[in-house]
Amino acid sequence: MTVRIGVIGTGAIGRDHARRIQQVLSGGTITALSDVNRASAEAVRADIAPEATVFDTGEDLIASTDVDAVLVTSWGATHEQYVLAAIAAGKPCFCEKPLATTAEGAKRIVDAEVAHGRRLVQVGFMRRYDEGYVALKAALSQTGAPIMVHAAHRNPTVPEAYTTPMAIHDTLIHEIDVFRWLLEDDYVSARVTFPRSCARTHAKLRDPQIVTLTTAKGVVINTEIFVNCHYGYDIQCQVVGEDGVASLPEPMAIRMRLNASLQNPILTDWKDRFVASYDVELQDFLKAAAQGTASGPTAWDGYMAAVASDACVRAQEAEGEAIAITYPDRPDLYTQG
Amino acid sequence: MTVRIGVIGTGAIGRDHARRIQQVLSGGTITALSDVNRASAEAVRADIAPEATVFDTGEDLIASTDVDAVLVTSWGATHEQYVLAAIAAGKPCFCEKPLATTAEGAKRIVDAEVAHGRRLVQVGFMRRYDEGYVALKAALSQTGAPIMVHAAHRNPTVPEAYTTPMAIHDTLIHEIDVFRWLLEDDYVSARVTFPRSCARTHAKLRDPQIVTLTTAKGVVINTEIFVNCHYGYDIQCQVVGEDGVASLPEPMAIRMRLNASLQNPILTDWKDRFVASYDVELQDFLKAAAQGTASGPTAWDGYMAAVASDACVRAQEAEGEAIAITYPDRPDLYTQG
Amino acid sequence: MTVRIGVIGTGAIGRDHARRIQQVLSGGTITALSDVNRASAEAVRADIAPEATVFDTGEDLIASTDVDAVLVTSWGATHEQYVLAAIAAGKPCFCEKPLATTAEGAKRIVDAEVAHGRRLVQVGFMRRYDEGYVALKAALSQTGAPIMVHAAHRNPTVPEAYTTPMAIHDTLIHEIDVFRWLLEDDYVSARVTFPRSCARTHAKLRDPQIVTLTTAKGVVINTEIFVNCHYGYDIQCQVVGEDGVASLPEPMAIRMRLNASLQNPILTDWKDRFVASYDVELQDFLKAAAQGTASGPTAWDGYMAAVASDACVRAQEAEGEAIAITYPDRPDLYTQG
Amino acid sequence: MTVRIGVIGTGAIGRDHARRIQQVLSGGTITALSDVNRASAEAVRADIAPEATVFDTGEDLIASTDVDAVLVTSWGATHEQYVLAAIAAGKPCFCEKPLATTAEGAKRIVDAEVAHGRRLVQVGFMRRYDEGYVALKAALSQTGAPIMVHAAHRNPTVPEAYTTPMAIHDTLIHEIDVFRWLLEDDYVSARVTFPRSCARTHAKLRDPQIVTLTTAKGVVINTEIFVNCHYGYDIQCQVVGEDGVASLPEPMAIRMRLNASLQNPILTDWKDRFVASYDVELQDFLKAAAQGTASGPTAWDGYMAAVASDACVRAQEAEGEAIAITYPDRPDLYTQG
Repeated sequence: MTVRIGVIGTGAIGRDHARRIQQVLSGGTITALSDVNRASAEAVRADIAPEATVFDTGEDLIASTDVDAVLVTSWGATHEQYVLAAIAAGKPCFCEKPLATTAEGAKRIVDAEVAHGRRLVQVGFMRRYDEGYVALKAALSQTGAPIMVHAAHRNPTVPEAYTTPMAIHDTLIHEIDVFRWLLEDDYVSARVTFPRSCARTHAKLRDPQIVTLTTAKGVVINTEIFVNCHYGYDIQCQVVGEDGVASLPEPMAIRMRLNASLQNPILTDWKDRFVASYDVELQDFLKAAAQGTASGPTAWDGYMAAVASDACVRAQEAEGEAIAITYPDRPDLYTQG
Repeated sequence: MTVRIGVIGTGAIGRDHARRIQQVLSGGTITALSDVNRASAEAVRADIAPEATVFDTGEDLIASTDVDAVLVTSWGATHEQYVLAAIAAGKPCFCEKPLATTAEGAKRIVDAEVAHGRRLVQVGFMRRYDEGYVALKAALSQTGAPIMVHAAHRNPTVPEAYTTPMAIHDTLIHEIDVFRWLLEDDYVSARVTFPRSCARTHAKLRDPQIVTLTTAKGVVINTEIFVNCHYGYDIQCQVVGEDGVASLPEPMAIRMRLNASLQNPILTDWKDRFVASYDVELQDFLKAAAQGTASGPTAWDGYMAAVASDACVRAQEAEGEAIAITYPDRPDLYTQG
Repeated sequence: MTVRIGVIGTGAIGRDHARRIQQVLSGGTITALSDVNRASAEAVRADIAPEATVFDTGEDLIASTDVDAVLVTSWGATHEQYVLAAIAAGKPCFCEKPLATTAEGAKRIVDAEVAHGRRLVQVGFMRRYDEGYVALKAALSQTGAPIMVHAAHRNPTVPEAYTTPMAIHDTLIHEIDVFRWLLEDDYVSARVTFPRSCARTHAKLRDPQIVTLTTAKGVVINTEIFVNCHYGYDIQCQVVGEDGVASLPEPMAIRMRLNASLQNPILTDWKDRFVASYDVELQDFLKAAAQGTASGPTAWDGYMAAVASDACVRAQEAEGEAIAITYPDRPDLYTQG
Repeated sequence: MTVRIGVIGTGAIGRDHARRIQQVLSGGTITALSDVNRASAEAVRADIAPEATVFDTGEDLIASTDVDAVLVTSWGATHEQYVLAAIAAGKPCFCEKPLATTAEGAKRIVDAEVAHGRRLVQVGFMRRYDEGYVALKAALSQTGAPIMVHAAHRNPTVPEAYTTPMAIHDTLIHEIDVFRWLLEDDYVSARVTFPRSCARTHAKLRDPQIVTLTTAKGVVINTEIFVNCHYGYDIQCQVVGEDGVASLPEPMAIRMRLNASLQNPILTDWKDRFVASYDVELQDFLKAAAQGTASGPTAWDGYMAAVASDACVRAQEAEGEAIAITYPDRPDLYTQG
């Protein structure tokens, strides 16, 4: 069965996902498009999915009988309404980050899905599909129960519009989700430590910073966020367990001996780092959608990421103090597997 | 357009390619199957391609109006006849190694394709699609014109049926093709040096051996073949150029600190080493087949590999002596790009 | 000139230093020995320094006209008295860690040396002489002004007698000194975070722990101390600067491909890790002593290490809270170079 | 006991060895100096060994009752005469490479030492004392009996005066000796293969070249010699054994993340690569000389290196042909240990 997909929001990421489904992945076809800027949707139809219908609104698209499942890749502030509409229509829905712009909004989605009684939502936390993280998680069976994680999220530079809280909501959000999955654990507190800021940062951004998360199982996770690190885009993760240490692999690169240096390139653009994992996550969505359900990162994961992010921002404001992270009990819907 | 594919030969590799086209890749569908053992083709239909037709013969399959393009994954001795039939039918054809069991047979395919006037054949040299080799080739622009290659092809163990010449035809064949592509060069001579054989080998196999190939541009390539190396399946390649040295990356692996050892796993099964490149090569085939043609490794490449392999086997027999490698001029059909 | 050395304390480290001076290094000779257990000193004389005189007390040894300079390698509680005696005698003195068992005691030595007006004391912080740290310090000129340090001090196992504060006084003490030297900076606060303790620890030891030191220049240093890490003795240090990241090299080891693993051994005994640096530090002592003075780690460094250690122990007790580190102005004697 | 050393030849290497003995090592003192350029010997006396006597001739120096042992660091053509004189005087003698300028000359030294009946000569093959090679040799116990060696000896550039045979006599000579020691084996044939020469070489030098040595035990050793490799001074060695592969470690270097590159420096000057091993080899000489004998690389090793070098030069001339390497039986004097 070929899953008929409607895409709401045809900006860069929506277009790219449409291309994946039409040209790379198996089992899906784009039948519907919608964008607040209709011309954008028309362009994707022309370039990528000539047989798709362009709808005036996301709600119309979701309602169409030609649509089996939905990709929500619109502006973040609109995610909640479309995901809720897809749940109401009983259609599987892949939603890019954030699931909602507030924890409360994410909780409304969780509640709606729980009420529906079957998983329909996959959140676009693609790192869980990265072959490096997948292999790292598998390796933890050898290194023993985790006790500490030392991590870094480095970016060469950010624009003036990037402020201190965005280091949490736009940057650390990936670590927040992937470490919950990696450790199969939940956060109980957050603390932020600020070294002196680097010379390359600007007035509205304290950079770098170190976020310390502790988990219910007692793991301490230190993540350096350094978004003006200059040298490259670099994601580091080392897990220290009872029996040993396992590290996230470096991206594939050619090692060269050149000009008195043994060297290999480091990526500079975040878009190149996890590009392969987008294919895998969407293929996973198509496979589950063909069964009328969803797999991968859940609405609950999206909600928990929102809760933890909010706490981290409060921890930034309370520099050096530990902020408790609390959340309701996990609904049964999300405890399978 | 969805390319309708017929698969001739539904053993392990044929079945796996059928699965790729049905479940992983975009743009193709399996419409026809054939195997000397009809039950095998029926099983693939049942498991993977329920809408396909099973044909009595490969020739019938090629002739079917429901087949746009053909995968030849049958027993090696039958490749030539099916590829020739596909060319006669003007249908794109992906043929697994070897293109033919003799250089003469491969040459007949070249001649038929040249007479046809358009590329229809892609040979299954998947290493050209491996991301490591692709990156290595790109890196050569930094390390300067190649002068030497140091390579190794190691396998943990081989059965008693594996004899000395098979180290060329079944093992080195991959290096023979990929180095021609990597260096954009042709071979002019081969020499084989035998160290003492390892203790784990058997009576009919001298193992390891070192094959020295020289190219028209004067590059010397030393490749160690060691198929009872015990420790793992390991493919090494280092290119020494005018300005520096570039090396094939190791496969992605998790580095662990464990038991007084800094370690990462080495693969032991060759099937795991280039598994991702099979997807890429077949996607490339589907893309070209949609245009009624073929890309990637050509029939000429298959022929040249056969010619070089034959010379290497003669070089084994003439232990220590250089054997010249000669071949006709390259037809214009194969000089594009 | 050959410097005539007296050794006070002929246990393991005293005997080893005597061996170095007699058999490995240039410019020194052991002329005097003393130990609370006279038989121990006699044994070193018999085995290593047959021409040395055994003295009843350290004070007698210091007073001897056959002694130009002194090694204090006795029980820690006696260090202060011997160092003060050496200063009083105007003789260069190499003192193993700790310089004194309290910060106050270390301060008395600083005051005595300042009153003397010339450096006479070298403290046995051998890491400053490790070729890895020396190279790391040199590399910081390329990676820019330091902002963060991520470090780890791991030991396979410790006995029951090792308690939580010893993780500071016996283990972190090396990082405390070497990071001051590496960064050319002083500490202003300490915080200790405890993950859950590992399964292999015992009742009196919380293990691992993470010590966060901040410096006057605003650098944040996170050091993991994990003394039951099981897998090996492992010292890690990564410095993140304005322009890049530099890491302490791994100890020299042979990388092997063996048993489906790419591996190299990790040390398990701390005594092997910095063994070469003991030679270098003592050669440095001999060279300066020949001029009647001392170089390398100063009494002030020993005092500062004691001050910071005390703060770290208080930070352990105040789990999670930042403890300020304060100290008097640095005397002029210690600002040269 | 302090060994009184006379140095014949006070150029760069002689001066440096004198400095080692006076300022770095234990157990030796320079008492005598001699150089064809007397001013050079006077300068070393003034700078390094003020109590030494300057002799008019090497023979006078050897005869002096103030000299227990001799360093021969003069011009290569004079080595044989001084080593023979030292043997005649029954004094231990450290001789820099080459032991003699011809195999016949080296054989005369062997014969003289055998006639004397006790080892007196150590040849300056310092690589045997390099900690990397020492560790590699130890690792062979894990990787099993050697079958192949893949090696490279790369130098950034050479002057016009460096001709093709010098790649053997001045460059490969180190591999020739160290592989005999590493493998505990002897050579039986040599073959040289020339790729196209690199663009940076000059008229009298074919560069790079690959020397294939086979041993009595059946090991095949391929060594690339590339003395205009441009990027650095780089010594590579990988031993393939029955059970696995072991590699010579890279020199200690700081890995940095900098400018979109993960990098560490590569040496460019050969003098930096094995500098530490000179200390170790001379300390070994001093220790044996104190017992009136010699250890380390023997006169027989020097002779065998000369025999193999001569064969390699003939193999260069016979491009592509295997040249047999023959030599007399090893005298009993050299079979101990």
